[in-house]
Amino acid sequence: MESFFSFLEKRVDDCSSLLCIGLDPHIPDLKEPSAASAREFCLNLVKQTSHYAAAFKPNAAFFEVFGADGWTALKDVIDAIQEESNRMGSMIPVILDAKRGDVPSTAKAYAKSAFENLSAHCITLNSYLGKDSIEPFVQNPENGIFLLCKTSNPGSGEFQDLIVDGGQWTTDDQRSMPLYEYVARSAESWNVNNNIGLVVGATYLDAMKRIRVATPGLWFLSPGIGAQGGELEQVVKSGLRKDGKGILLPMSRTISQSDNPRQRAAEIRDEILVIRDQISRQRE
Amino acid sequence: MESFFSFLEKRVDDCSSLLCIGLDPHIPDLKEPSAASAREFCLNLVKQTSHYAAAFKPNAAFFEVFGADGWTALKDVIDAIQEESNRMGSMIPVILDAKRGDVPSTAKAYAKSAFENLSAHCITLNSYLGKDSIEPFVQNPENGIFLLCKTSNPGSGEFQDLIVDGGQWTTDDQRSMPLYEYVARSAESWNVNNNIGLVVGATYLDAMKRIRVATPGLWFLSPGIGAQGGELEQVVKSGLRKDGKGILLPMSRTISQSDNPRQRAAEIRDEILVIRDQISRQRE
Repeated sequence: MESFFSFLEKRVDDCSSLLCIGLDPHIPDLKEPSAASAREFCLNLVKQTSHYAAAFKPNAAFFEVFGADGWTALKDVIDAIQEESNRMGSMIPVILDAKRGDVPSTAKAYAKSAFENLSAHCITLNSYLGKDSIEPFVQNPENGIFLLCKTSNPGSGEFQDLIVDGGQWTTDDQRSMPLYEYVARSAESWNVNNNIGLVVGATYLDAMKRIRVATPGLWFLSPGIGAQGGELEQVVKSGLRKDGKGILLPMSRTISQSDNPRQRAAEIRDEILVIRDQISRQRE
Repeated sequence: MESFFSFLEKRVDDCSSLLCIGLDPHIPDLKEPSAASAREFCLNLVKQTSHYAAAFKPNAAFFEVFGADGWTALKDVIDAIQEESNRMGSMIPVILDAKRGDVPSTAKAYAKSAFENLSAHCITLNSYLGKDSIEPFVQNPENGIFLLCKTSNPGSGEFQDLIVDGGQWTTDDQRSMPLYEYVARSAESWNVNNNIGLVVGATYLDAMKRIRVATPGLWFLSPGIGAQGGELEQVVKSGLRKDGKGILLPMSRTISQSDNPRQRAAEIRDEILVIRDQISRQRE
């Protein structure tokens, strides 16, 4: 049985890309405010960018807002990614961006929905409820999660930056740490199946560097480049692992709103590769 | 314009109840694992318990697990509560238990889904992303939220109990506090529209007492009685406000699995009233 992050890394190698295509059918970006239009928007983006996508990340909210029809569209989009993967002969992971989080008995239903019914490979989860709330999602190593650690929004520091006692993570050097680091270290200790990563916003580079030091091996999902202001080069430098992997960079409007999404995705993929090569040369 | 908690308090007075009926169509409790069966299960429970329900709380996960059909069933159940309310001449609030939480642009879509499309009156939200992630939900005072503060699950202490520096909430008596208390005090300061309450699990009485002292005026939604082990009398004593309101007690299986759900709901409603009267006599 292959773990989620082995699966992702195989795809990263296949397409030489750390780019994650965000499938966010915001109503203002659609021809009309309908599930059919959201579906069409995403299917077009999948078709145009599949060669350069290390992963696709549909955001549940922008489908849920169309009710039952939106849910059908979401299922169709995930199925289309699977078909496109088969056609190319390289499977592309689907990360359902849903940020769920509930008590264990309810979490089981969310896990069934994401992995069995929708056939997503991975889901974003909120960390606030603790380990037992994520267990139903990670028991099968093939299913992955990205756990909210330091989010990209302006108000993320309100609780996530609070200084907590290091507890079990205390070292000689460090007695206290921000909550987000405590969450990151906890997640690393839970990652026995190689299927737990972290959401680390691209908008807070100091936090990202700190989390990379604390958890040198974990994958980051790092939204916030472009629309939210993160600078690509600095972000890659702050989050890349020593093996030149370990950070997935979701982009959506930057690509979907360009005149030629296919070309734009290729350019960004290549831009990331150049930065990555610079970093590995500097590190040699 | 009436605020959400004025609306809830009117209903609490109308039915003399602090009981919240949880609509959790767990698959093992259904005749068959289908959205139709989930819908039937909930409609029956609504019909039987409406006289004693201060609110209904459908949990999104148990509908979402049936995909598009589940989403339609959820909408039908909420519509049925509205019809039942009209029939009785007393509006029953619907709290969508969804525990959503995302960056502001995405949060807007979730808010539209819950309040405009599904016509819920209130939603449960995760607090980890901070104030800007909840703003799209609370701008209209008629819409309410219950923000996760101290959850009822066994692992809730993992992050929620961490001791943080009190920051802006520091007093002469108190320099540090558990994260859940910091969240509670923050939520109280944001509650300018009388539409923000807290999820405070019935399974941690010391935490509940502490949160009641910190936020004497806020409404609590307190799951965990029955299946999860909270004792009714102790819970009401720990969470009740001075005005004999302020705590909503969700129950689902205790009622749905009894031979006579209508009678069981009436009994529990009355049990709560007896405890409440005892408390007010003791306080006099």
